Amino acid sequence: MSSTQPTSLTQALPIDEIRYNEQGLVPAIAQDYLDGTVLMMAWMNRDSLQKTLETGEAWYWSRSRQELWHKGETSGHIQKVRSIRYDCDSDALLLTIEQIGDIACHTGERSCFHRVDGIKDAPPADTLSEVFKVICDRRDNPTEKSYTCQLLAGGDNKILKKIGEEASEVVMACKDDDKDAIASEVADLFYHALVALAYHQVDLRDVYRKLQERRR
Amino acid sequence: MSSTQPTSLTQALPIDEIRYNEQGLVPAIAQDYLDGTVLMMAWMNRDSLQKTLETGEAWYWSRSRQELWHKGETSGHIQKVRSIRYDCDSDALLLTIEQIGDIACHTGERSCFHRVDGIKDAPPADTLSEVFKVICDRRDNPTEKSYTCQLLAGGDNKILKKIGEEASEVVMACKDDDKDAIASEVADLFYHALVALAYHQVDLRDVYRKLQERRR
Repeated sequence: MSSTQPTSLTQALPIDEIRYNEQGLVPAIAQDYLDGTVLMMAWMNRDSLQKTLETGEAWYWSRSRQELWHKGETSGHIQKVRSIRYDCDSDALLLTIEQIGDIACHTGERSCFHRVDGIKDAPPADTLSEVFKVICDRRDNPTEKSYTCQLLAGGDNKILKKIGEEASEVVMACKDDDKDAIASEVADLFYHALVALAYHQVDLRDVYRKLQERRR
Repeated sequence: MSSTQPTSLTQALPIDEIRYNEQGLVPAIAQDYLDGTVLMMAWMNRDSLQKTLETGEAWYWSRSRQELWHKGETSGHIQKVRSIRYDCDSDALLLTIEQIGDIACHTGERSCFHRVDGIKDAPPADTLSEVFKVICDRRDNPTEKSYTCQLLAGGDNKILKKIGEEASEVVMACKDDDKDAIASEVADLFYHALVALAYHQVDLRDVYRKLQERRR
């Protein structure tokens, strides 16, 4: 998957206000721009921060190699930087990035934070992405008792009927101005739309990309 | 806003495998469990990590006060921990948390990472939350040319008609098995559902909560 548009990082970060530690480094968190997944944490010094601002691609400081590290230079897994934030005491950075190739970790995993309880498990993203992940898992590993599996087994005619039904229920809940029902019915509508996406092998990230493109 | 259910952190983290730095510390990133917003980065030592696992609430190490720091003890802005991940080289932690009071920063902002370009700007979350933020802003600061404002000005009858229409377009795109159209139409359906939420002053986070509750 390649970038659809070039990143232009025209941001003015007050580099000299950043509080580097005794080694001249500041921790930098890289976060996916679509679903908020934390992909990695690495270190930057003043030079790598400047390089990042100039090029719009993430440059870190490699503590093991003691050199500037253009992330993805050898693997191709470059990080296009959309924005850089710094925290209230100016000693940590948050980069919003587009991860080329969708792989940030040297192990080949999408995120470096894939370890929990001693086992591998992808880190959480937003709620919708989490629900979508479960639905895709049900699709690929069906079990009889699951409602999601029953929907998927019924195909378009079963899934799409539910989308019409849930849309009508959103309409009614709004007409009643019943806030709790509105939240419930929109949740139902979202869930069934996710099932339709999974059934048609369309990634939720493609929907997010459409929404991001329209914001421009 | 208070927690709806107690956090039970029954997780077994291999505390001794974590690679603490020369001060015995490891950076810990706290991320919102609903929309993926990065709320803060602080430091933990072995004791604070143990306390966090035992209590299910975030304990850090305060470098300025050189003491264990039970986040939220004085402010009430406690962090209920849902999971702790560690990264590929075991020298950074990622906490998925429920932030009580929705405020993580000592400045009163939701996230410590609220500074960009020298100005205040909340950090990004997932795409849907970002779009919702823009819609709420249009609702609160209307401009004539905005399509969102026109929808909101039309009220339920205008907004809900569009939800019916977009739901039908999702149905047609699925029946055509046109993957690009499916992504587009689901994006349209999501957008109009967000407008309905904004119009009725229902928070997208309430929808996310409904979806999370059902996952249990």
